[in-house]
Parts: sequence; C-alpha cells; structure tokens
Amino acid sequence: MSRLALSDADKEARDWFIETAKARNCSTTVDAMGNIFAVRPGRRQGPPTFAGSHLDTQPAGGRYDGILGVTSGIEMIQVLDDHWVETEFPVGVVNWTNEEGARFPISMLASGVWAGEIPLSHAHELREVGHGNAGATVASELARIGYLGSTPCSHEATPMAAHFELHIEQGPTLESTSRKVGIVHGAQAYRWFTIEVTGRAAHTGATSFAHRADALLAAARMVSYARAAAEKHGALASTGIMNVEPGSTNTVPGHVKFSLDVRAAKDHIVDAVEEELRNAFSAIAKGEMPSGVGMMQDAEKGKPCIVEWTTDSNSPAIDFHEDCISCVRKSAEATVGDETDLTMDMRSGAGHDSVYASRQCPTSMIFVPCKDGVSHNPEEYTAPEDCAIGAQVLLGAVLRFDRLRARRGW
Amino acid sequence: MSRLALSDADKEARDWFIETAKARNCSTTVDAMGNIFAVRPGRRQGPPTFAGSHLDTQPAGGRYDGILGVTSGIEMIQVLDDHWVETEFPVGVVNWTNEEGARFPISMLASGVWAGEIPLSHAHELREVGHGNAGATVASELARIGYLGSTPCSHEATPMAAHFELHIEQGPTLESTSRKVGIVHGAQAYRWFTIEVTGRAAHTGATSFAHRADALLAAARMVSYARAAAEKHGALASTGIMNVEPGSTNTVPGHVKFSLDVRAAKDHIVDAVEEELRNAFSAIAKGEMPSGVGMMQDAEKGKPCIVEWTTDSNSPAIDFHEDCISCVRKSAEATVGDETDLTMDMRSGAGHDSVYASRQCPTSMIFVPCKDGVSHNPEEYTAPEDCAIGAQVLLGAVLRFDRLRARRGW
Repeated sequence: MSRLALSDADKEARDWFIETAKARNCSTTVDAMGNIFAVRPGRRQGPPTFAGSHLDTQPAGGRYDGILGVTSGIEMIQVLDDHWVETEFPVGVVNWTNEEGARFPISMLASGVWAGEIPLSHAHELREVGHGNAGATVASELARIGYLGSTPCSHEATPMAAHFELHIEQGPTLESTSRKVGIVHGAQAYRWFTIEVTGRAAHTGATSFAHRADALLAAARMVSYARAAAEKHGALASTGIMNVEPGSTNTVPGHVKFSLDVRAAKDHIVDAVEEELRNAFSAIAKGEMPSGVGMMQDAEKGKPCIVEWTTDSNSPAIDFHEDCISCVRKSAEATVGDETDLTMDMRSGAGHDSVYASRQCPTSMIFVPCKDGVSHNPEEYTAPEDCAIGAQVLLGAVLRFDRLRARRGW
Repeated sequence: MSRLALSDADKEARDWFIETAKARNCSTTVDAMGNIFAVRPGRRQGPPTFAGSHLDTQPAGGRYDGILGVTSGIEMIQVLDDHWVETEFPVGVVNWTNEEGARFPISMLASGVWAGEIPLSHAHELREVGHGNAGATVASELARIGYLGSTPCSHEATPMAAHFELHIEQGPTLESTSRKVGIVHGAQAYRWFTIEVTGRAAHTGATSFAHRADALLAAARMVSYARAAAEKHGALASTGIMNVEPGSTNTVPGHVKFSLDVRAAKDHIVDAVEEELRNAFSAIAKGEMPSGVGMMQDAEKGKPCIVEWTTDSNSPAIDFHEDCISCVRKSAEATVGDETDLTMDMRSGAGHDSVYASRQCPTSMIFVPCKDGVSHNPEEYTAPEDCAIGAQVLLGAVLRFDRLRARRGW
C-alpha cells in the first residue's frame, strides 16, 4: 500500500470513509487539519466515545498499520446499525491526518494539533519531503483535495469522551508467544539523537592505527556499546541511520553521523541510558574503553575524535487511562476467553495517535499480532481471523466504556 | 587542485610537459593510453632510466600527489642540461595517465596497461563516473584532447631500464619521526572486500533485542573486531564505506554493506587476517562473540544475520629492486648525510604507478614528508625545502643507476 497523506489516493480513501459513514446515518465533521470525525448519535447528548486511527501509509507500507483501526471503526458502526443497538452516548470513528510523518515529516501530526501540542500554523506550513512536489504544504494539499475543514482542529471544538485504537502490534511479541490480543497500558518513552563523530580523513594504506582519528571505528564502538548499555538498563537503543564521509574504500572516515533511538517504559530509564552513553561516547571518542559493559580491549589508542550530540525529539512515557484499559481487558476476555492465555498486557513501542489523544481524553489501545512483527513493509500481514478478533474487542471496549459513563453519570 | 584525467585542465598540463621537455631537446612519445615519455639522449643507445609519476589529481586533490614526481623529473632534465651533464644512457621523464582512478574508476590504469596487466581494450572502454559526462570513455577523451598516441602502450614498445618515482608519503610517519627521506622497499599487499550483512528490518520501538536481526549492530562489531584483529597480526584493516538500509531512525537496519581494506607487508599476513575475519564475522553474524580478541560481552543474542564476502581486488606485496633501492639510499645519504637519522626504510601503503612499473623493470620510490600525513585533500602540503630534497635524491638516484648500468655493461 502506498497512500501518502493528502495524496489523490488519500482523498479517495477519505471520500469512501465519509460516504460509508453517511450511508449509516453518521454525521461527519472535517477539521482544519483534515481530521474526519464520523459520529453515530446515542440516546443522550455528549462527547462521543471514539474508535479510530489513520488511513495514510508509508511510501512502501502495508495494508494494516492504521487502516485496521479505521476500518474496524466503520465495521463497529455497521454492526451497531445492523443490530439496532442504541448507545447511551454518541459513538464515533476518527481518521487522523498524516500519522506516518512520511510525506510531511512530523509523525502523528494532526492528532498532535488536536491535542494542542503542535501549533496549527506550524503544521499547515510543513512541506512535503522527497516525493516530488517540494512546494506542497499541508495546507495547500488539504485545500487541493478538498479536506481543509472549517471546524477548528482542537479537543475543545471536537471533544472526545474516550479514544480507542485497534492497531497491529508492529513487533513480534504477540505472535512469538501465541497471544491474540495485546491490552496496551501506555507507550514507551523515547528520545532521538543525532550523534556526530569527527576524526580526520586519512589514507588507509599509509596511516598507522596510532596516527588515525577513525570516526567510523569510534562510531562502531559507540553502536556496540549502546546496545549493551541499553540492555543493562532494560531499555532499547537502536541506530537506523549512519552516514560515513568521505566514503571511499581507501580513506579512513573523517566524519560519521548516526541516529540513536533510546526507548524505555519509564522516563528515568531513558535519562539513565542517555547519561551513561554521553559519558561512554566521550571516552570512546578519546580512544578509551569505558568500563561497566564488556568492551573491546587491546586496541592501540589512535588520535582522539570529537563527539557531538543533538537531541532531535523527546517523547515522555505515556500511561493510558485505567478505565479504558479495563474496558479493553474485559472485552478481550469476553472475546477470547478469560481463562485462556491469549491476552497480554503490554506497552506500545511505537508512537500512535493515541499518544496525543491520551493527553486530552481517556485512551487505550488494542494490539493484534502481525506476521513476523513486520510493519512499514508490503509484507505486513495480519490474518483475517485476527483482524476480526481485534474488531470484536474494539466494539466491546467502546460499548463497555459507553455503559460505564452512563453508570457513573458522566 | 582539481585536474581529472583527460580533462581540459589535464590537456593543459600535458601540453606544458611536452613543450618544456622539447625546449630542453628531449624527444617525446605519446602512447595509446596517453602516457607521455620525454627522453634526453645519453652517450649510448638503450632503454632510458626514467623518473616519473602522474599529473592527474582527485576531484578535490592536492598539489603534490603525483605532480611532485613529474615536475621533479622535468627539473632533473633541466639540471642535467644546465650543467652539460652527459649520461651514459638516455634518461627520461614519464607522465602516466589516470593514476588516481578518480575519473575513470581503475587506479594506476595506464601503467597497468603498459605493464601488460590491464588489457588496452578494457582500459579504452572505461567510462567516466560521477563527473557529468557519462558517455565519455578513456578512448573518446584521449582522442578529444589529442593524446591518443600511435605508439602501442606496452613495456615492449617503450622499454624502461628503471623507474624511479618521487612521491609525498601520504602518511604521517616521516613527519612524526622528523625524517626527510623515505627509502621505499616495496608496497604493502592489500586486498579489498565488500561485506554484506543481511538481517531483518524491524521497528526500533516494538522489537526486543532478542527478536532483532540487526545488520548494523553486527557490522559495527565486525568493524571493531577487524581493527583489533589486524593489530594483532601487525596488519591494517579499515572500513571507509558503509551503507545502511533502509535508513530510518526508527527502523532497525535490515541490510548493511561495507568496504574492508586489509593491508600488510607480506601476502601471508593478509591471508591470515582474511581467514581470521571470515571466521569471526560468521560468528558475529550468528550473534556469537569470537574469542582471541577482547569483544563485547553480556549482550543478549538476537536473531542471526547472514554475512557475504566479495573480493574486489587483490594486490600482492611488491618488493622493489635492490639496485634501485641502493641507488636511492646512496643518493639520500649524499643529500641529507649518512650519519644523520633523517632517512627511513619503509614500504608504501598506497598504490603507485611504480607498483606496475616494477613488474617490468627495476624500480624504487622516494618519499618525502607531507604535513599531518594529509593527502587527496586541498590541505595537502610539503614544504619547498622538502620538495627540493626529494628532487635532489631523485636526480642522484637516476644518475647512480645510469653509472651502475655502464659499470656492469648492461
């Protein structure tokens, strides 16, 4: 699937979403970020309980990431309609704009604006990256496809009683432990850094180890060290990008820039990993071998490199709402049985629109297994029966929350 | 200096070379690879003793690499002429084409053809890389600038009695030990490999270490290991290129390709390093920690990666000719004093036209210090007095070899 945010393909999917919701007597609202809210009335007035996610994908993405959460919301509406179910309060389905951050380079962009965490003007001015039309902005593309809505994009203009998001796990844990449903308690803290190591370019044949300031050797040791240090703290550390300059077989690299992604269940763990790595990377750049984690020994010290850190983003750990988690748990147990071993309590490793939603309303997520944990890839796959289980749990969680509100008199 | 082989700038330098040589009554020959041989007659007939190197540079190169060896040859001719020196046999200066391999991607291209190691047709058909005119070949550019000579490019058509090459060291050894002249005994063996590590792309937040097949982590460990293993063997191992895919901050890399350059004074040492690294890289790809060199410990084993090796080039160690080395030594001692500590016996870490020349005639090289060992860079610098010492040693070595031939009746 290739459905970049606000492309012609995205417009088609949006049109389908609105037509389908309207055919089931939902009212629809489009806000200034193109978020679409479809609402089915309840017995009483009040903010709807929402299911939802996003319909945009990575440039070479899969058919489930985000999409499953929206189509299951539509399915929920249809099931309620087919069975003449009246809810106490309205229920709704939301399609958030540009969750992937693939076309416009901020992830979870429009839920971030809705939650008041990203200024609307900043979001509107964001330019397309790397897909051909460098002049296009979020605002210009919203206008072009007819989805620049008149409703302000905010949690005040479009309040939610709760936000439930069904999503594929995007990791291998459920599949490898033969679970069917992940009950998601929150999202990991993560912090992204760019690390630049500057040494000195030199001829590989003519420069002894003692005379080298080898930026790639230092970077390689940092990547190895980060892995071991993160493990020690119960965290994750990953490098996904590495640029090596000048980039010639017979030149010792003088400059290396790499990404570092540190994640953990708690903010203080991310802090601790960052602190350890700042100290260790400084030592490695000087050619010293930091202690505390087994490291390369015996190597002759070269000339020192310089290491510089830039913090690119910082997302604190998120705890979802106990009531929502409880609704998901009960619905999951009703779906797969409460004496089986088919559910699992977990935290999301990835970011989701639910992270921003949870800042403004009770939120939880439901994970279903995906094959080999693969995502952001055409091979992404979740079996139809697992999609159905997820949709059933979503429906049940929304209905349980609706009844809970009525019972508590919210 | 930016003087790519067979460019307009190269044509200007070639024209200057021929004009200058002719003005000193040298005969000049251009062969089918554009190599230029300028010859000053001696008392007797016979193959000339040559000084020489190359006038082409890297795209952002220095003013000494190669150039010093040719201009010092011209200086030699002028000094002989100014002082009415008659040599026993002819002496000459050679400018070899495309030594850098920067525009047409084989280094020491035309000395390789001359030595019979590279087929002429292959060299002629070689296409320009990355400098704008993708259709240009060596043959078309030779013709365009008027340097497609009619003399066959071969050591039979243009024989040499010997080849002496003055060159900047391109490393920091002479400078850091306060030596003035390197007496070059030969060139290191080197072997170039491309190593491909294939793991599996995965989400950094959603994939535990145990579920990762992290191609970059494996590659980082390989780079670290190669450094330590090479040191143990008294060799050099270097990685100058590393490509990481898919290349996104929140994706564990599924594929990494990197260069590995192994060098040592002797072929069997390169063999031993290669053997050790093949075993160690296989172990590292499986998540095991090879013994023998201190390595990262404690890390939880992930999923295995696959490692594949390609040998890109293999250049055996070269031993230069004892007579030539002796001529360089005596000339150096005559220039800087034989009781000083200003000379050093060494091997070339880099490739040079002398490597191919040595396959067909007695050869040696003379190194002079360059600032901080920097080369292939606009900052490349050798002090004028060090250039003068080098030129003096070159002149003396050529004259000594000329007399040696006469004495031995060659």
